[in-house]
Amino acid sequence: MNIFPKKLSDGYFSFLSGRFFNEQKKYKNLATSGQNPEIMVIGCCDSRVSPEVIFDTSPGEIFVVRNVANLVPPFENEHSTSYHGTSAAIEFAVNGLNVKHIVILGHASCGGIKSFIENQYPLSQMDFIGKWMSQITPVAEQLNIKVGNYKHEDIKKLEFGVVQHSMNNLLSFPSVRTRVNEGKLHIHGAYFLISTGTLFIKYGKNFIPLVNN
Amino acid sequence: MNIFPKKLSDGYFSFLSGRFFNEQKKYKNLATSGQNPEIMVIGCCDSRVSPEVIFDTSPGEIFVVRNVANLVPPFENEHSTSYHGTSAAIEFAVNGLNVKHIVILGHASCGGIKSFIENQYPLSQMDFIGKWMSQITPVAEQLNIKVGNYKHEDIKKLEFGVVQHSMNNLLSFPSVRTRVNEGKLHIHGAYFLISTGTLFIKYGKNFIPLVNN
Amino acid sequence: MNIFPKKLSDGYFSFLSGRFFNEQKKYKNLATSGQNPEIMVIGCCDSRVSPEVIFDTSPGEIFVVRNVANLVPPFENEHSTSYHGTSAAIEFAVNGLNVKHIVILGHASCGGIKSFIENQYPLSQMDFIGKWMSQITPVAEQLNIKVGNYKHEDIKKLEFGVVQHSMNNLLSFPSVRTRVNEGKLHIHGAYFLISTGTLFIKYGKNFIPLVNN
Amino acid sequence: MNIFPKKLSDGYFSFLSGRFFNEQKKYKNLATSGQNPEIMVIGCCDSRVSPEVIFDTSPGEIFVVRNVANLVPPFENEHSTSYHGTSAAIEFAVNGLNVKHIVILGHASCGGIKSFIENQYPLSQMDFIGKWMSQITPVAEQLNIKVGNYKHEDIKKLEFGVVQHSMNNLLSFPSVRTRVNEGKLHIHGAYFLISTGTLFIKYGKNFIPLVNN
Repeated sequence: MNIFPKKLSDGYFSFLSGRFFNEQKKYKNLATSGQNPEIMVIGCCDSRVSPEVIFDTSPGEIFVVRNVANLVPPFENEHSTSYHGTSAAIEFAVNGLNVKHIVILGHASCGGIKSFIENQYPLSQMDFIGKWMSQITPVAEQLNIKVGNYKHEDIKKLEFGVVQHSMNNLLSFPSVRTRVNEGKLHIHGAYFLISTGTLFIKYGKNFIPLVNN
Repeated sequence: MNIFPKKLSDGYFSFLSGRFFNEQKKYKNLATSGQNPEIMVIGCCDSRVSPEVIFDTSPGEIFVVRNVANLVPPFENEHSTSYHGTSAAIEFAVNGLNVKHIVILGHASCGGIKSFIENQYPLSQMDFIGKWMSQITPVAEQLNIKVGNYKHEDIKKLEFGVVQHSMNNLLSFPSVRTRVNEGKLHIHGAYFLISTGTLFIKYGKNFIPLVNN
Repeated sequence: MNIFPKKLSDGYFSFLSGRFFNEQKKYKNLATSGQNPEIMVIGCCDSRVSPEVIFDTSPGEIFVVRNVANLVPPFENEHSTSYHGTSAAIEFAVNGLNVKHIVILGHASCGGIKSFIENQYPLSQMDFIGKWMSQITPVAEQLNIKVGNYKHEDIKKLEFGVVQHSMNNLLSFPSVRTRVNEGKLHIHGAYFLISTGTLFIKYGKNFIPLVNN
Repeated sequence: MNIFPKKLSDGYFSFLSGRFFNEQKKYKNLATSGQNPEIMVIGCCDSRVSPEVIFDTSPGEIFVVRNVANLVPPFENEHSTSYHGTSAAIEFAVNGLNVKHIVILGHASCGGIKSFIENQYPLSQMDFIGKWMSQITPVAEQLNIKVGNYKHEDIKKLEFGVVQHSMNNLLSFPSVRTRVNEGKLHIHGAYFLISTGTLFIKYGKNFIPLVNN
C-alpha cells in the first residue's frame, strides 16, 4: 500500500482551508448546476505551464485538455479502432458544452519538442511518445528545420509552428469549422515564455506579447 | 480577427503581477534547469477539477495529463497507426522524467461518465467521444450497471470504478509495471467530490476521505 | 456466597445456544489445535469498545490486550522487579504466536484520558491509575496541551496522540522492531468514534475514516 | 504504509451495517452519557476467549481488562517506578466507575500457563513474559505441581488455581477489600472450557458448570 504523496495531501489541506473555504458556495453551485465553461484550453502536460495558474481562473471557467506538446491531431474521416483522447475532448467541448473559445497554449522549453528536434525520440521503450511527436514532422519540414541538426532559434520557431499546426487541425473537425464559420466559436493561439512570464498571443501570422498598459 | 478572451487576458495580468511576481525566481530557475516533477496526475478536462488548484501545487511539481473522464487506455502491443496522447504522456513521464508517483484523479458529476451511463453518447456528431467513452463499457459491465437504465448510486460507483480501471491499465504498460515492481513508481487513485471539497483516496478496495487532524 | 451476575449467566446461555451452537466445530478445532491468530489488538478496557464486536471477529482471530487508554509502555532495558502485563503480552504475541499485525485501537471519550487532561488523576486512592496515565505526559506536552486548562479539541488531539505514542513505543521493543524491519510485522493505528460508529485509521500523519464504497 | 488488515476492515463494515446500525441509539447515548458498567471482567488475551462473546454482552455492560493468563498482581504498598496496567485498571473500575462485580475469567488450554508449566518460558527474547508468568510460581508450589515435570491433570489444576490466585490478590487492594467488606463489591471466578463451551463458576472451593435448566 502506497501512502498518498505528502506534497499532494499537504497541498490539498491547504486548498481545503484556503481557496475551497473561500469559494465553497461557487463549488457547491457548480456541483449542482454542472459545469458551463465558455473556454477550452488545449495545453501541454508540462509541470510549469498550468492554464489555471497562468490565467488565474476560477473553478468552472476553463475546460482543459493537456497532452504532450499541446497537439491537436487532424480529424480522421475513417475512424480507426483506436481511442483519440484529444479529439474526443474537442467534440465534448464543442458539441456537448458549446464552448465559445478554444485556446491552444504552447510554451517555451517544451520537452516533447526538444526530444523531437534532437531526434532522441525513437527510444526503444518510448514507442507511443515517438509516434505522438511524429505528428509534427510536417511542421518541421515546412519550417526547413533539420531534425538532429538544428539551430538554436529553430526550437522557438518549431514551438510557435506547433501552436499554429494545432489551430489548423482544429479546423479539420467539421463541427469546429461549422461553428467558426458561423461566428459561434473562436480559435486562439498563445505561448508562455516560462523564464520571464511573458504570454505571447497569435496575432495575424505573428506572436505578440500581451502587455498591460 | 478574434480578440483574445478578456477573462484570460485579465487573469493573465493578475497572475503576472501576483503569483508570477512572487515566484519569478522559481520560474526562471525552472526555465533554465528544465522541469523535474516527481508526480504525474492524470485528470479530467472538467473545468471544476484543476489538479494544480486542488493540490495547491507550485510550478514544476506535477506533470498533468487531462482527458475526458481521466482514462488510461490499455497498452496495445501492436501499435495502431493512430496517435495515443495519454499513452505517449505516460511514457514521457515514466521513461523521460522518471516520475515517482502517478495519481489518477477522478471526480463527482463527470460529464463524460454521465453521458455514457445515460446512453447519450452515440450522437451523430460525437463519434470520437462515443468511441472514447466506450472504453469504460467493461467497467460498467463488471459493476452490473445497466447503461440507459441505471440507479442513482451507480454514477458514483462507475466514477470510482473508472479510477480503478485507469489504475489497472497503467500496469499494462511494461515500463510502468517494471518500475512499480521495483518500488520506484507508485500508483494512486483519488476522487474529488466537488460539492463538499472532499478528496477521497483509494485505500485497499475502498475510497476513503482524506482528513486533516 | 455471591451469586454469579445474572446479566452474565443469561448472556452465557444466550451465547451457548446461539453463537457457540453454530460455531461449535470451530471452537472444538481451536481447542485441539490451539490458537493461531494473525492479529493482535491493543485496546482500552472501556465497556463500549470491544474489539471483537467492532471488528465482528470469529473466535481465534484476534489476540487482545486491554488496559486503560490502550497504552504501550516503552521497552525498558533494565528490567525492574515489577510485572509488565502489556509488555509481556506483546512478547507473547510477537515471539510466541508470530502475529503479523498489531493494531492499537483508541477511542473517543476515553475516561482515562479525560481524567488525565482534567488533572483529576492523583486521587488519594488512585495511585496506580495516576502513575499509569502519567505515561502520556510527554504526549500532552508535545501537543502543547495544558493539563487542567485544556480546550475541547485537545481531547481528541490527545486521544489521537496516544494511539501514535503506543505505535511508537511498540517499535522500542527490539523483537517488534526487527520484525517490522523485515516486513514480517505491521503496526496499525485505529480510533473508534462511539457516537457515530466511525472507525478512523492512521494514514500517514492523519486519522482518516474507513468508508465502504 | 501498511494497509489495514482486510479481515478487520471487512469485519468493521459488517459491524457497521449490522450490529451498530441496530444499536446506534445505544451507542449514541453511551457516547453522550459516558460508560457506566456494573461489571468488570479480567480475562486472558487468548483469541478464543472474548468476554463480550461468551457473555453475549451489549456495549456499555462490561469493563474488560485482558492480559496473559488473566492475572491480578498483588497490591504493592511501596509503589515501584514501573507501570502496573492491571492494577491501574482495577483502581479505575473500583474507584472511578464503582463497579459492583469483578469476574476473573480463566480458560482451558491457556498458552501462558502451558509455557510456564512446560518451563519453556525463560526464552532469551522473552523476558517480560517470563517475568509476568513467574507470578504463578507460588500457585504451582502450593498445588505441588512440578514445573517441567508435570502430569496432564496438573494443567487444569493450575488454570483453576490461577483464577483463585487472582481472586485472592484482588483482596490485597485496600479499596477492593473495603468495598467487599461493605457488601458493595462482589468477586467471582469463572473458567471457560473452549472445546465444549462449558462455563465453570467458582462455587465455594470448587468450579461447577453453569447449566440452564
